Amino acid sequence: MRLRGFVLLFLIVWIVSGLAGEGMWPLSEIRQLDLKKKGLKIDPSRIYNPQGVSLIDAIVKVGGCTGSFVSPNGLILTNHHCAYRAAQSASTPEHDYIRNGFLAASREEEIPAKGYTVRITESYRDVSEEVLSAVTPGMDFAARTRAIQRKIKEIVARAEREHPGKRAEVAEMFIGKTYVLFLYTYLKDVRLVYVPPRSIGEFGGEEDNWMWPRHTGDFSFLRVYVAPDGSPAEYSPQNVPYHPRKYLQVNPQGVDEGDFVFILGYPGRTYRHRTSYFLAFEEEIRLPCVANLYDWQIRVMEKAGQNDREVMLKHLSRIKGRANVMKNYRGKLLGLKRLHLVERKREEEKALQAFIDADPARKAKYGELLAAIGRVYQERRQSAQRNLILDYLPRSSNLFNFALTIYRASNERAKPDLEREPAFMDRNYPRTKERILLALKDYYEPTDRILLKDMLLRASRLPEGQRIQVLDEMIGQEDPEAAIDRLLDAMYARTMLNKERIVYAALEQPVESLKILDDPFINLAKNLYPVYQELKKERERRKGELDPLLAKLVEVKKQFLQKKFVPDANGTLRLTYGHIRGYSPRDAVYYQPISTLRGVVEKTTGEEPFDTPADLLALIEKKDFGRFQLKRLGSVPVGILYDTDTTGGNSGSPILDARGRLIGVNFDRAFEATINDYAWSEEYSRSIGVDIRYVLWVTQKFGGADWLLQEMGVPLK
Amino acid sequence: MRLRGFVLLFLIVWIVSGLAGEGMWPLSEIRQLDLKKKGLKIDPSRIYNPQGVSLIDAIVKVGGCTGSFVSPNGLILTNHHCAYRAAQSASTPEHDYIRNGFLAASREEEIPAKGYTVRITESYRDVSEEVLSAVTPGMDFAARTRAIQRKIKEIVARAEREHPGKRAEVAEMFIGKTYVLFLYTYLKDVRLVYVPPRSIGEFGGEEDNWMWPRHTGDFSFLRVYVAPDGSPAEYSPQNVPYHPRKYLQVNPQGVDEGDFVFILGYPGRTYRHRTSYFLAFEEEIRLPCVANLYDWQIRVMEKAGQNDREVMLKHLSRIKGRANVMKNYRGKLLGLKRLHLVERKREEEKALQAFIDADPARKAKYGELLAAIGRVYQERRQSAQRNLILDYLPRSSNLFNFALTIYRASNERAKPDLEREPAFMDRNYPRTKERILLALKDYYEPTDRILLKDMLLRASRLPEGQRIQVLDEMIGQEDPEAAIDRLLDAMYARTMLNKERIVYAALEQPVESLKILDDPFINLAKNLYPVYQELKKERERRKGELDPLLAKLVEVKKQFLQKKFVPDANGTLRLTYGHIRGYSPRDAVYYQPISTLRGVVEKTTGEEPFDTPADLLALIEKKDFGRFQLKRLGSVPVGILYDTDTTGGNSGSPILDARGRLIGVNFDRAFEATINDYAWSEEYSRSIGVDIRYVLWVTQKFGGADWLLQEMGVPLK
Repeated sequence: MRLRGFVLLFLIVWIVSGLAGEGMWPLSEIRQLDLKKKGLKIDPSRIYNPQGVSLIDAIVKVGGCTGSFVSPNGLILTNHHCAYRAAQSASTPEHDYIRNGFLAASREEEIPAKGYTVRITESYRDVSEEVLSAVTPGMDFAARTRAIQRKIKEIVARAEREHPGKRAEVAEMFIGKTYVLFLYTYLKDVRLVYVPPRSIGEFGGEEDNWMWPRHTGDFSFLRVYVAPDGSPAEYSPQNVPYHPRKYLQVNPQGVDEGDFVFILGYPGRTYRHRTSYFLAFEEEIRLPCVANLYDWQIRVMEKAGQNDREVMLKHLSRIKGRANVMKNYRGKLLGLKRLHLVERKREEEKALQAFIDADPARKAKYGELLAAIGRVYQERRQSAQRNLILDYLPRSSNLFNFALTIYRASNERAKPDLEREPAFMDRNYPRTKERILLALKDYYEPTDRILLKDMLLRASRLPEGQRIQVLDEMIGQEDPEAAIDRLLDAMYARTMLNKERIVYAALEQPVESLKILDDPFINLAKNLYPVYQELKKERERRKGELDPLLAKLVEVKKQFLQKKFVPDANGTLRLTYGHIRGYSPRDAVYYQPISTLRGVVEKTTGEEPFDTPADLLALIEKKDFGRFQLKRLGSVPVGILYDTDTTGGNSGSPILDARGRLIGVNFDRAFEATINDYAWSEEYSRSIGVDIRYVLWVTQKFGGADWLLQEMGVPLK
Repeated sequence: MRLRGFVLLFLIVWIVSGLAGEGMWPLSEIRQLDLKKKGLKIDPSRIYNPQGVSLIDAIVKVGGCTGSFVSPNGLILTNHHCAYRAAQSASTPEHDYIRNGFLAASREEEIPAKGYTVRITESYRDVSEEVLSAVTPGMDFAARTRAIQRKIKEIVARAEREHPGKRAEVAEMFIGKTYVLFLYTYLKDVRLVYVPPRSIGEFGGEEDNWMWPRHTGDFSFLRVYVAPDGSPAEYSPQNVPYHPRKYLQVNPQGVDEGDFVFILGYPGRTYRHRTSYFLAFEEEIRLPCVANLYDWQIRVMEKAGQNDREVMLKHLSRIKGRANVMKNYRGKLLGLKRLHLVERKREEEKALQAFIDADPARKAKYGELLAAIGRVYQERRQSAQRNLILDYLPRSSNLFNFALTIYRASNERAKPDLEREPAFMDRNYPRTKERILLALKDYYEPTDRILLKDMLLRASRLPEGQRIQVLDEMIGQEDPEAAIDRLLDAMYARTMLNKERIVYAALEQPVESLKILDDPFINLAKNLYPVYQELKKERERRKGELDPLLAKLVEVKKQFLQKKFVPDANGTLRLTYGHIRGYSPRDAVYYQPISTLRGVVEKTTGEEPFDTPADLLALIEKKDFGRFQLKRLGSVPVGILYDTDTTGGNSGSPILDARGRLIGVNFDRAFEATINDYAWSEEYSRSIGVDIRYVLWVTQKFGGADWLLQEMGVPLK
């Protein structure tokens, strides 16, 4: 008994100390954080001030990334990988900006970053009450989900009517509980200013991805323009640089080990308030399944491109994307195991249950809560394999993805705008089509076929109770592999969906007109469409059941722990703070928190992704460090490591020092910190940024762009 | 000019500071080292005392390893990998001592370590004058080499006559310059006492080999027996434990970071006194060639064994051996590059040349020295590819190796004993035969054929001037691959050398009798024999030319640097000292010098080679650390790292603390320290040992062998 008490005490201490270090704080919480005690040396109102201008006004969303204004003339500093797509699409065989980098010698030479927008947060307000008013007693689970989604669409439409030119979005802060309406301005004329070559900006590539120590110059400069009257406008030579309400001061001195830092950015999604049932599902089913599938798919694609550079180029971005996910999932699996997360969550839940059961009123209200959540996941497990196949079928075969999107579009686009799935609403459909056409460029039949065959084979091996009847009928019982081969022979011989013209036209056709094509992939999509509709309903039902349970869980956890919670990341602006700090990734190894040019030289092999430009090596050899040397290390700092709380979406976020000056650009997490999505770990949660001294040193000494330093107010010597 | 002066000064400082940290000191130097100043807390005469008993009397050579007596009853502590062969050959399918480990519950249960001997150093004396007296003016280079070898054989034979029962060996200390005669006692009844299971003793396997942090329990206990009258004897149940003149005290407290340690052992071979020409040859030619060849051969063998455990078992020891060499060579290549060793040696030699040229008398004597050495290596390069093929032909094909050994034996064994190549002298021939028969057990035709074909193909692609005529005639000019295939079809169909009976008989036949076999492999060996004889002569010539030059080089370097040199390692007893000390293997990474049980748990996957026994994990889980915990780390230390100067052959060496007590067993070096063979590096030269606390903890808590601790005088609690 004494042991149990001790375990309980230990767990509570663990929960609390765990939360003490973590936090992706929403704007509304910033003023209550006592950041001065943590090390901040300016008034917190200078970070966020709803009544005036503050640092957060310098923070923007650019693509899926964060960026920040660093000059009065709309200059934005973000990651290299955030500008990658723009640099790639601006490249030609003669001007390869990925390989050679890009520097605009003057404003006139800046080139449009096609498809890029810069989003500025204008205001936000709580709309939980209005959203939840859509729910009426007696609604079934699926109806509840749909009602909330519909209400959100209405709120967004109204807000956009009331604020012409702005874009509205409703973010769910606590699942099933709190909703916030954000108003954004989108600026559409974004241009490339300076992008270092891939051999600096992507140095280390996949091998170093999710890893510390890092030596990647993952930064780029963009500039945003507006119409001469200051309003957002598409690209025009007449446009003028945007003057932001606020821009960040750059601190060319940088920071050192132990210094306080904080980050403002748009972290994407975390799952900290989920239960042990969720984590067990992730650990036992989803993560290993997807990691193994991607591992195999990557090998298929690499083999296909092995002796054919053109084929390899078609596969590169998919290989990169899947490798990124696979390594992330492997890191998460390591973290789940090392930190015994499921077990710890279970112990937490046991303690919570004991707290609930100790009071009859509480027991009446929450007594069955955890068990009910457990049942939802139990049900989810029963169709997990089937649903994974349905989800990864369009992700594996491009042709099937085109077909399913075309067939869906023809159904959804027939409905009134507000009733459509978001991807097919007028405001989003251009983006949806653009993605399909991009995927068509990378289409390669032999690979598509291998991956589709594999998914169909997996479907043919599903256990009883999870079978997909449509596919069973197509494939039959005898020798599924031979049957699939015959089927695919016929389908690939006949389909027209490998033609851009056809796909483009088909994306605008009503269901009836699609029949003319009689395309085998569209026919397959048509046959599977009801299955996907049923899956959608299953998920609406489950969400409708789970969300109110999770809302109640947060309620009772608050009573138990007597503290405020930070909502999970959801793509909205957050602050996180910490210190420049190393860690021990494993026994007898310590990672120091500042990497230097020494490591660039050590890693350089001359072969991609470790092919540092000769000019950069010459600068290092000459020790031409300018004013950017960290004396203690006798070199220019390249990467920095810090224990703030970040996740995907924080890419490009400015790292700010105790005085709110920019000292680096966030771009990754350490391998062990992939676990951040599930739990913050004092031991392992470390984020990775490129040091401002490396940014400035490369820009000045390698890029030769003194004027950019001057624009940022950085003295040249 | 000022820069040049600075460079020179820097180099001299570098050379001196480099030497300051290094040193595998021979016994004769120990008393001049001022070890007390370095941290030793006992009188150096307790380490080595030619007039009495000292610590070195506790040091033995066992197999190719070092070991030490740790009890008055002949108990020896050495590495697991040093007892591996004995444990393997004592194993049966029912009693797998590799998998399960072995513990003799009493002395009666100790089992013979077949083929093992324990060598004790009895005395040594300088015989340089006598050896070099064999050289007469006007001798050509090859004759010089042969004369010295012949003289050494005579000295050995005489010494063994004068000291019956002892074995004599002459070691070359400085090449071409100093020779020492050692007298050894060999004890032949060696028995296994405690060998932990492979999952402890080999934990980490090839993956962790040459790597820190390490968590391998690489230790074992043996015991040596003698006849009841105390004389060396073959195994007999009547034998009694040997009472060594000296045994080491075990210090169960161990050491901590920064503590002084020293090592006594038999380091194999180093090349520190060689020139830049030697290092450039290694870096540019030999190391990359062999590493790449082995890399490919390992993959061939792994593929062969992929789906066939029996085939895999035949290949395992060769795979292991080649992987070990390959990783060592790759480490050396990394070190050569990182430390710019060739360049540094060249700068050293430039400075030396300037010193030589500054004095007319010196210039007359040594002026051409470096150039002459350079010419020898230039010549060596001209036949390098050809000679590599000749060297690796028998190492690649077992059958060809058997054939060549058989044919050589029939030639050599016909000569008087003293004129034979050492491997075929009576005192060594049993060992030579044993090796061939061991290799026969691992023979697997498909692999043998693939590797032989590859070597013959390489031979067919040799450049003009390096061609091997015998092979050219065999293979012909047209389509060498097809010709080789036809040739090998015939050879493998006809050969009898895959039969133990035949090989065994053939190893004792005169040349004439071999003809009866008409074996295609023996015929090939016969045809190539003159080529190998010519290669031998080429090497004798080169050695005869190079050795006196290297002797002169040491002479003039001593004048230049005004200091004593430590001779290169040559398998004789040496002392090296240093401290428990971490290092930075690369930018922003620091390796701490003590690993713990935490790492054992972290690395454990359940799959070989990371399959820690469940009982051991349970002990860790329970924190049942007994008296072996290092409080500061809250765990039992497993591995220790220290900056002493070691190389291969130091395996099993005792690591001793400032008071001369045993605190660990040396077994490996860090990856970056593979460079030790060429140069000692303050930054990277670190050796790896198993901590005595882990040895004792495993032996007591996991092995349950309290009595062994008691025998060593270690209190149980």
